[in-house]
Amino acid sequence: MPNPTRFPRSLAPRAWLAMALALAAPAAMAQEAGPISLERFGSFHVGGRMVEISGQPIREYMPTTGGQLNRIDPNGAYLVGQMYAQYMIPAQQRGTVPLLLWHGAYLTGVTYETTPDGRPGWDQFFLRRGWATYVSDAVERGRAGWAMVPEIFREPVFLPMQNPWERFRIGDGAGSYARGTTREGGQFPSDAASYGNFMRQVVPRFLSTDEAVKAGYIALLERVGPSVVIAHSQGGAFAWQVAQMRPDLFRALILIEPAGTGVPAEAARLKDVPQLFLYGDYLDVDARWGAIRANARRFVGLVREAGGQVEEVDLPARGIHGNSHMVMMDRNGDVVAQILQDWLVARGLWN
Amino acid sequence: MPNPTRFPRSLAPRAWLAMALALAAPAAMAQEAGPISLERFGSFHVGGRMVEISGQPIREYMPTTGGQLNRIDPNGAYLVGQMYAQYMIPAQQRGTVPLLLWHGAYLTGVTYETTPDGRPGWDQFFLRRGWATYVSDAVERGRAGWAMVPEIFREPVFLPMQNPWERFRIGDGAGSYARGTTREGGQFPSDAASYGNFMRQVVPRFLSTDEAVKAGYIALLERVGPSVVIAHSQGGAFAWQVAQMRPDLFRALILIEPAGTGVPAEAARLKDVPQLFLYGDYLDVDARWGAIRANARRFVGLVREAGGQVEEVDLPARGIHGNSHMVMMDRNGDVVAQILQDWLVARGLWN
Repeated sequence: MPNPTRFPRSLAPRAWLAMALALAAPAAMAQEAGPISLERFGSFHVGGRMVEISGQPIREYMPTTGGQLNRIDPNGAYLVGQMYAQYMIPAQQRGTVPLLLWHGAYLTGVTYETTPDGRPGWDQFFLRRGWATYVSDAVERGRAGWAMVPEIFREPVFLPMQNPWERFRIGDGAGSYARGTTREGGQFPSDAASYGNFMRQVVPRFLSTDEAVKAGYIALLERVGPSVVIAHSQGGAFAWQVAQMRPDLFRALILIEPAGTGVPAEAARLKDVPQLFLYGDYLDVDARWGAIRANARRFVGLVREAGGQVEEVDLPARGIHGNSHMVMMDRNGDVVAQILQDWLVARGLWN
Repeated sequence: MPNPTRFPRSLAPRAWLAMALALAAPAAMAQEAGPISLERFGSFHVGGRMVEISGQPIREYMPTTGGQLNRIDPNGAYLVGQMYAQYMIPAQQRGTVPLLLWHGAYLTGVTYETTPDGRPGWDQFFLRRGWATYVSDAVERGRAGWAMVPEIFREPVFLPMQNPWERFRIGDGAGSYARGTTREGGQFPSDAASYGNFMRQVVPRFLSTDEAVKAGYIALLERVGPSVVIAHSQGGAFAWQVAQMRPDLFRALILIEPAGTGVPAEAARLKDVPQLFLYGDYLDVDARWGAIRANARRFVGLVREAGGQVEEVDLPARGIHGNSHMVMMDRNGDVVAQILQDWLVARGLWN
């Protein structure tokens, strides 16, 4: 093993060190392939509020073989409505602000990790380009945890196998899961193994927590500071609404297939946040997604009227075909990520 | 910025490169501080089974401002009982097999990430020493997701603020949360902010999923291959039981405050798995944990009678005082981690 303290006597240690660092630096900066160097990484929870629960029966159970009786009094104070984030800070940081990745409904931050067919996801795409990334689980989802039903959270909804297949434009419409048919030219990895991996990451969502989710995102942004946010689907609607509440916390906002909009009457609050939004393919044959995009375009029209800068990327018009609702998991997901990266570079947010 | 293609003409590029790499290598291998180099990282889900649900009413809701009516038919097939794992593979791997970190009840893999007071957790401790680490969320917990209640999963249990304070030996027994008192000399970061951060990571557990959890862990081990497993609390009981089912998948098993045991009648199945177990402090004054440890010692006695090698580390007897149930989060957590690392080195599992 080389000993770093044994330098040739003909050169001063400081000169050798400078030389070694100079030669090693390019490898550390070209992180698109090979090992990736992190300055640090970690995770935290933010937000939440206290709720008092009373009148519940005491719970007794024997937890496991060889354990001791567990007597849980569920009455008392609960900390609920927090959210979770995991961050990775690259050694060679090139993004000028943090980059936050917000997932959609029935999903968690796993959306941006490894794709269902095993490729590196968008988290890694941006990390390798020098962005400090924060992948989060919104309130109620994944590692954010969830609260007592129905006393605190209400109305969990679960998705069976056929639902995302047909609703996320992987299959070709109603009945396509039973038929086993997909959109022609579709880019989602729709083989049985990959779709199974995707469905393993689907989690319940609640219909009672929208305000808590937005409060959680504001707490996250207050902690990490003004950021670039990439938000998907339901997360896109939350992002627009959160940006209307706290435009000072957004340096740029990218919306991937937003499933809703901000508040139309407050569109002007977004006039100073650079925005990009995009949808995938097949919106001409999927009436529901076509209507959602029409809503988004109307909302964006109001933002533009107020002086806002919003760019729409029309993927099919650029010759990029076959994208499902899960653009970041599609086989051509990195082609789309590169469009986002180029747009962020053009906004002066990367150096 | 230094240009790697401009070498002094007096030296051949190859010679310079070799020199630079030799000088750079020690920095990459001594990763206990400073940047950490990852060969790769990612996440996946494993396991699960299909369950058919019928007879449920159709759910209609307007998901968000500017969205379109969502009509969810919850009837159909569900993939349930999967688990989640995130892996980090260091560029300089020194562990001879993967190292898996399994959490306890009401918790997720966050247990091993950043501590509640912001220090790097055990995941990072072992990663920095060259272990390929896998931090998982067991079936039902965190990013593993959860299934319809009560049709598939039953009996979720939630923990109010006072419960871990009093049950995990942070406070000094019953009533200590209300009193705001802690064990004398306790190592858990028990200031209000840190305890709040800890409670933010507490999630519900279910009383109906033990078999699914064990099946998930076997699926995880089958995917990554024979491993070192570090398991905490409820995870320790699961680990002993899983190791009895598949001893071939364990190279070593470390149990941190196991809350239960394996199956006594099958203790001999553990005879070829090197094991270490430990508890923290205050077990002489906490009757419940004292009884749990007595159970564990009885079980370990059976394993030893069958020829198994099991080491107990008695922390207070070694002069390591004040440990709560959450040893990995205690202020002296890295002292304990170093004991585990030394034991793994002595077993020949690290080079």
